[in-house]
Amino acid sequence: MKILALDTSTSKIVVYYRDSEKIITQTYMGKDKHGRNLGVVMNNLKNFNINFEDIDVVGIGIGPGSLTGLRVGISFALGLSIDKKIVVVPSTKLIAANLMNSGKNIVVTRKARQGYIYGAVYDEYLNNIVEPFVESIENFSKEFEKMENFVVIGDGAEYFGGNLPEIYNYPEPSRLGYLVEKEIEVENFVEKVEPLYIQKSIAEINFEKKKQRKDG
Amino acid sequence: MKILALDTSTSKIVVYYRDSEKIITQTYMGKDKHGRNLGVVMNNLKNFNINFEDIDVVGIGIGPGSLTGLRVGISFALGLSIDKKIVVVPSTKLIAANLMNSGKNIVVTRKARQGYIYGAVYDEYLNNIVEPFVESIENFSKEFEKMENFVVIGDGAEYFGGNLPEIYNYPEPSRLGYLVEKEIEVENFVEKVEPLYIQKSIAEINFEKKKQRKDG
Repeated sequence: MKILALDTSTSKIVVYYRDSEKIITQTYMGKDKHGRNLGVVMNNLKNFNINFEDIDVVGIGIGPGSLTGLRVGISFALGLSIDKKIVVVPSTKLIAANLMNSGKNIVVTRKARQGYIYGAVYDEYLNNIVEPFVESIENFSKEFEKMENFVVIGDGAEYFGGNLPEIYNYPEPSRLGYLVEKEIEVENFVEKVEPLYIQKSIAEINFEKKKQRKDG
Repeated sequence: MKILALDTSTSKIVVYYRDSEKIITQTYMGKDKHGRNLGVVMNNLKNFNINFEDIDVVGIGIGPGSLTGLRVGISFALGLSIDKKIVVVPSTKLIAANLMNSGKNIVVTRKARQGYIYGAVYDEYLNNIVEPFVESIENFSKEFEKMENFVVIGDGAEYFGGNLPEIYNYPEPSRLGYLVEKEIEVENFVEKVEPLYIQKSIAEINFEKKKQRKDG
């Protein structure tokens, strides 16, 4: 099976390729827009005699993240994926994967519009504890104070006392590959790919959960 | 400052480049020998308008690891590094970096000759607890039983009940960059680069430490 996976939700372009003989990864992070550099990255892959037409499954990081960046990546991936299978991974989970198996819950926070962050919380095995949300920094600080046994990463971590190396704030290609392959294993293929827009605050998520329990 | 870093101690070629505007990483892991693919990887870097003559510091993973692989990488890096500064990082530390900040000590073990492993032990901040050693699997099992609060990774982890994802067994370019930049920060430059041959067992390391304490 030949797999190509891609995430462009942050300022870092992250690409993973695997077939039966080799694994290749590439990343580019810089000031330029993703458009130009994604082309260079993909052309570089071809220098290893990879033919995009032979790919069986395309994996895509669907954000949340920079909408322009996401659109570039998702359009490109969709262009490749005609007649191929597709799996998707939330980009917050990709970032959380940088600290999986650390024995702690992982709080991923990223800067949103002024005064707001979006984020998600995972356990060390990357199970969702709080699904992706958007929240004011002020409100999330209150939620945050109640949490125990966690690490906080992402470019919004600075608002919550995060002091881990900056490399944890961006997706890594090998962990993208790891998560994409897990989706393929359970045949979690999707028909349609859209960027993950986050509209719900934690309060709304909790309210809906309560309502579901009540109704159920 | 322009930095190029390289590790070829495992079956994975790991390359990291950074200048004031961009960070680029590439990896290749496969059955082929490193010679050919290292060339492709390096040519791919040039497609981002990188001129190797402009590099200021070269960072090199010095093993322990496959001697042939290491020689290819180190020769290449040395060829680039004429008139440039050089920093080195043990490849066991690069592997340990996959689980830094996990709150646990990190035991890195790699397969050596039949019945033997080499390895090293680090704390979660990558301070050396046991420096790189070679040991029979039998003897290390006894040492291993005494250890507490640790994780074990590397392609020798299977002998000691290691069951973490395989991606932790190989160096990652972003963590190579992180460690190389830490060496540059403290100006830990070296004049000479040689592969890290490991000759000492843990017993010998402990004996020498005791002797040092006694003599000191």
